[in-house]
Amino acid sequence: MNSSRTPVLVDCDTGIDDAMALLYLLACPTIEVVAITSVFGNNTAARCAHNTVRVLELVGCGEIPVAVGAEGPLVGPLTYLATHVHGTDGLGDAGLSTTTVAQPSSLTAVELLVQTARQHPGALRILALGPLTNLAHALQAEPELDQLVADVVIMGGAADAPGNQTPAAEANVVHDPEAAAQVLAARWPTTLVPLDVTMTEIVTEGHVAQLRAADKPATRFVAAASEFYFDHYGFSSYGRRCSPCHDAVAAAVLTGDVVPTSFPFIDVQVDCTDGPGRGATICDTRGRYRGFVGTPEGRTRVALRTDGTFPDLMVKRLGELTAVDE
Amino acid sequence: MNSSRTPVLVDCDTGIDDAMALLYLLACPTIEVVAITSVFGNNTAARCAHNTVRVLELVGCGEIPVAVGAEGPLVGPLTYLATHVHGTDGLGDAGLSTTTVAQPSSLTAVELLVQTARQHPGALRILALGPLTNLAHALQAEPELDQLVADVVIMGGAADAPGNQTPAAEANVVHDPEAAAQVLAARWPTTLVPLDVTMTEIVTEGHVAQLRAADKPATRFVAAASEFYFDHYGFSSYGRRCSPCHDAVAAAVLTGDVVPTSFPFIDVQVDCTDGPGRGATICDTRGRYRGFVGTPEGRTRVALRTDGTFPDLMVKRLGELTAVDE
Repeated sequence: MNSSRTPVLVDCDTGIDDAMALLYLLACPTIEVVAITSVFGNNTAARCAHNTVRVLELVGCGEIPVAVGAEGPLVGPLTYLATHVHGTDGLGDAGLSTTTVAQPSSLTAVELLVQTARQHPGALRILALGPLTNLAHALQAEPELDQLVADVVIMGGAADAPGNQTPAAEANVVHDPEAAAQVLAARWPTTLVPLDVTMTEIVTEGHVAQLRAADKPATRFVAAASEFYFDHYGFSSYGRRCSPCHDAVAAAVLTGDVVPTSFPFIDVQVDCTDGPGRGATICDTRGRYRGFVGTPEGRTRVALRTDGTFPDLMVKRLGELTAVDE
Repeated sequence: MNSSRTPVLVDCDTGIDDAMALLYLLACPTIEVVAITSVFGNNTAARCAHNTVRVLELVGCGEIPVAVGAEGPLVGPLTYLATHVHGTDGLGDAGLSTTTVAQPSSLTAVELLVQTARQHPGALRILALGPLTNLAHALQAEPELDQLVADVVIMGGAADAPGNQTPAAEANVVHDPEAAAQVLAARWPTTLVPLDVTMTEIVTEGHVAQLRAADKPATRFVAAASEFYFDHYGFSSYGRRCSPCHDAVAAAVLTGDVVPTSFPFIDVQVDCTDGPGRGATICDTRGRYRGFVGTPEGRTRVALRTDGTFPDLMVKRLGELTAVDE
């Protein structure tokens, strides 16, 4: 391993777009994925950990430790898993092997998360791609965690855009609003990559054709999983065959490959009521009319606009990744 | 009076932009302003009724009945009046006479509203420019009111835009969320003209210069009141000397002079919790990614985008109004 690479722990509910994010990060030469923790969301945490290992082994990275995390939110019962979005096997029924050599770690997600943070004091970056339950539990278990970790980049929420699971709320946050509130209130720097940008970075039939043409295990998988995703998003959102790649956009914001064209520090409050706004990330974007100057109270950096070209980059990178591994 | 004109009742908390809306409507040849009711908001309902009479007499319309309405919300105490936005005299300290010949009606706002609706069955349009308390009280007093009235056009709320009084909520709605919820749930057709459009129809120094050049009582008043408004909005919102003209935009949507370029029927829920989203108008704008087709459950027509040219039209019309009256 190249120790000059930035250590990243990914907390995820793998999922099609989580898989895209993982593969994208593994293809990034400046990043070392040092650990992965799973959480309920797109599927059960146990299934998501298994899916993670499937993805890792696809590109010869089965040695990265994967730990199973929370199976439900901090408060109240688990009410929903997004299994319909991600297929029977949780990865778009795209033909990825369901048997693996590696197995999830014997550590819990919280144990792996705290241990990894201590191994990289001040350096570890966390990419959070599911409900924020594991991070909230880890903050409870190690109150200094938010001083040990460099920063947290979160795919989640909606600023000026509508939600997806409800008109007001995005799925990762509405799955566990109380956890999201704790994570955003902690002392670590936080970056939010909300639906405002993830819904406008769109994977198209053209991208799928490029992925198929690259003809590597990872590109074949992402092509097939994207087609599955198209069926859902084409019907539910866009009215044409295409899809977002939510979590992968957050990965690229973490690496710096995507630099949002609007990226202010703003105050974010999570709606933890039982009202119609439950799970909303209320972002104080009132500075929009003056170009976002002068919001000194803003603690979370929020990606409000990107240029829509990330899927082009992702397709290119995924082709390079598999070429290296074969 | 020309009986072919459309009868409109204006419910307002006059206010600089309410005054602009009233003057704009009075200048509109297809509209007959048949009654005006006042409500707390920009000031007390009593002061807002007095301000309304001041504006009417400026253009020789003191005969239009004005009734005083609610001095506080349906639920809980009155916590806030926007007096700082509208000046000591409530109309931008723009030199408008504070003595009037006409006086407010001996009827209450609810009595005048119900009486006026009965006089114009199926024809009366309501333009609501303040908290929706009077309309909620009137629905209680006359349960058939929402069948008697043609429709209600509301300046209020925020769809994808941020709020103004809080990050989530616009002032008219947050002043009385329970009333707003009742008004939007009633059977009359409702149109919402939210901050999404009112914050982007901007009165500039150039408009003020045109108003001054017209040199009529109404244009001199609106010019001076706008300058006062600039001081507030330049500092609080835009970072340059200019202002919105919120209520006047709603008036122009009612008349059809402004036809929003995005104007879907969508589902709107008012947040009546005590959480950080209290007073938010949660608009289901998830159809945005497919061009707003297929939201059959949407009952409220929401103005999401206009072209920004309304202040040009307003300035022109106000010049015509005073020319007729002198």
